[in-house]
Amino acid sequence: MKRILTTLAAALLLLAFNASAQTFKAPSPEGWSRTSATQRQSEFPKVNSKGEYWFRFRAPETAKEVKINFAGKDFPAQKDAEGYWNVITTSPKVGFQLYSIIIDGVKYNDPGSEVVYCNGWAGYIEVPSPDDDYYLMRNVPHGEVREHYFYCDVEKSWRRAYVYTPADYETNHSKRYPVLYLQHGAGEMEQEWVHSGFAAIIADNMIAEGKIEPMIIVMNNDFVYRPGDTRGRLAMSPTYSENFEQMLIYEAIPDIDKSYRTIADPQHRAMAGLSMGGMLTNSVGLHHTDMFAYYGLFSGGTPVSQPDIIRKDIVKLVFETCGEQEYPDRIKADTEKLNAMGINAAYYVSPDTAHEWQTWRRSLHEFLPLLFR
Amino acid sequence: MKRILTTLAAALLLLAFNASAQTFKAPSPEGWSRTSATQRQSEFPKVNSKGEYWFRFRAPETAKEVKINFAGKDFPAQKDAEGYWNVITTSPKVGFQLYSIIIDGVKYNDPGSEVVYCNGWAGYIEVPSPDDDYYLMRNVPHGEVREHYFYCDVEKSWRRAYVYTPADYETNHSKRYPVLYLQHGAGEMEQEWVHSGFAAIIADNMIAEGKIEPMIIVMNNDFVYRPGDTRGRLAMSPTYSENFEQMLIYEAIPDIDKSYRTIADPQHRAMAGLSMGGMLTNSVGLHHTDMFAYYGLFSGGTPVSQPDIIRKDIVKLVFETCGEQEYPDRIKADTEKLNAMGINAAYYVSPDTAHEWQTWRRSLHEFLPLLFR
Repeated sequence: MKRILTTLAAALLLLAFNASAQTFKAPSPEGWSRTSATQRQSEFPKVNSKGEYWFRFRAPETAKEVKINFAGKDFPAQKDAEGYWNVITTSPKVGFQLYSIIIDGVKYNDPGSEVVYCNGWAGYIEVPSPDDDYYLMRNVPHGEVREHYFYCDVEKSWRRAYVYTPADYETNHSKRYPVLYLQHGAGEMEQEWVHSGFAAIIADNMIAEGKIEPMIIVMNNDFVYRPGDTRGRLAMSPTYSENFEQMLIYEAIPDIDKSYRTIADPQHRAMAGLSMGGMLTNSVGLHHTDMFAYYGLFSGGTPVSQPDIIRKDIVKLVFETCGEQEYPDRIKADTEKLNAMGINAAYYVSPDTAHEWQTWRRSLHEFLPLLFR
Repeated sequence: MKRILTTLAAALLLLAFNASAQTFKAPSPEGWSRTSATQRQSEFPKVNSKGEYWFRFRAPETAKEVKINFAGKDFPAQKDAEGYWNVITTSPKVGFQLYSIIIDGVKYNDPGSEVVYCNGWAGYIEVPSPDDDYYLMRNVPHGEVREHYFYCDVEKSWRRAYVYTPADYETNHSKRYPVLYLQHGAGEMEQEWVHSGFAAIIADNMIAEGKIEPMIIVMNNDFVYRPGDTRGRLAMSPTYSENFEQMLIYEAIPDIDKSYRTIADPQHRAMAGLSMGGMLTNSVGLHHTDMFAYYGLFSGGTPVSQPDIIRKDIVKLVFETCGEQEYPDRIKADTEKLNAMGINAAYYVSPDTAHEWQTWRRSLHEFLPLLFR
């Protein structure tokens, strides 16, 4: 009996070994091409006309369990004859989708991917969406995105903002522009509205179609640290909202009004943000309603905490958005409350999306035409 | 005898096991702070006042040999009680130094690091150098770096260039500027002269000191692909030099002269590049000497292959540089040959450096004051 069991166990072990040693059979290379986010020196990830993505990367010889996490789901990887690990799959979701390699529980970037900042530098795939036309680069005049430095007295150092100027900014030196201050979420940095959210492309396309006013878009980092503030994993200073307020209201806005041809009054100034950026739009912007006439809260911030401080004579619009899978009922209720108070409010729910870039790209696309009219 | 050897082997194995299982003892956290290249959500890498760097990161439980490669040298890592791997070391070199994690022979980025593009996205440390003053950000007026898009007929798509405009570009709309076209090396992309080379900071500082003419610096990607060109690991098209020539001479330069307030003549146009960018400066720039009066070849390109095509009435300077550990004798000989031909040439050798950013930062710093005078 014992011998039978031992033999059985050995056979099972052998089977298990064979399963893990199963060699990935590469499909014919025909019909596969690099994705838009495959970095220059890589051949993978690739995509085919069926919308399948092929990830291929190395893992240590010692690795036992190798997989990728793509668009929020895990996919086991298989080793090929050359020792590379492979996954071929369609994407569980459309739009901007992060992915990472997971080797025995530890997460790494695929060296083959371009990167964006989202809770650290991360690889991604831009998955086509049926409604993606508004954020694809078209043959229209393009604005510029500028790395702009200003001295920040809160931080006692020079600070970078990303500033979008529309295509006609350099051709008509007598023209002045309204400004949207646009904030990212807790996981991102100042460049992510451009690199992950495609804000510049969306604005270029909508300006070219005459759907929105040409405007300047200023993207500041949400995080502002006083010297000695603890940084690190949470990346949040104890007084982050107050620090941000000092930076934005008393330093960034005066600098932008001095450095660019802005129309420097509240009727030509808007503030919006996603997630943590929406919370800052509430905690800072809606507490300075003498500064901004238009507000966008995308998947973040509840704008009715202190309605008495809202200057109804100035505020023209509070616009709340979220994904259908977030809290549509709440933003609808917020909007009703604000309207009942005599504050013009509206909302937008992004179909079939969650707390993700596809929600925020659409939110920006819905918000921009409502500004400065 | 056999038994003695077996016992000895067992003892050695045990020793080896104990050595690898040795637990890293963390130093007192006092005196350690995040480096300038530690990403926002990380606490590591850290640096102390002795110039020691402390790297700390995760590796799979299955990992056998874990090390980092930092500034070209390997350093073994040790596991701590929380399961993180650690290296504490001074840097073998000053200036911009890449590092990566190597797990059983496979290279990954440290998720704790900011990234630059150098043969893929890579982590780095900016190690202080005794001569670093010229590339540190000072309290002077700052120019802007712009993500500028133009339609590239060679590629049949929109193409990004990085464009530095000096601080007074937006304040004096009647002023026109000379232009330096500045190319990266084979491992980099269009942004690396800004993000790794600190070209904008160097120009800001030297303009503020009155040492150089305010100028526009245009940074194009070296790689230009026709539709259907093979991309991939080598990232080189079969006709890369010809493609680049078409893009730069017939598309990028006319676009820049249209989009910016340039002085559009050869006496106010320069071309320079590092490594592959130096080769392109030779193969494209020095074959269009009706276009540029000034040339910089930093660690790349030998400018005497076809001296007969050089328009001596236009060319004012050919400037060759390299690190002391590269080929100083060759660039000295090149310079002598050019001068003997009646072409004004000069060279610069960067002390104690090799094929690296410290050489190229210094080269730019030496080159800029010679331009447009």
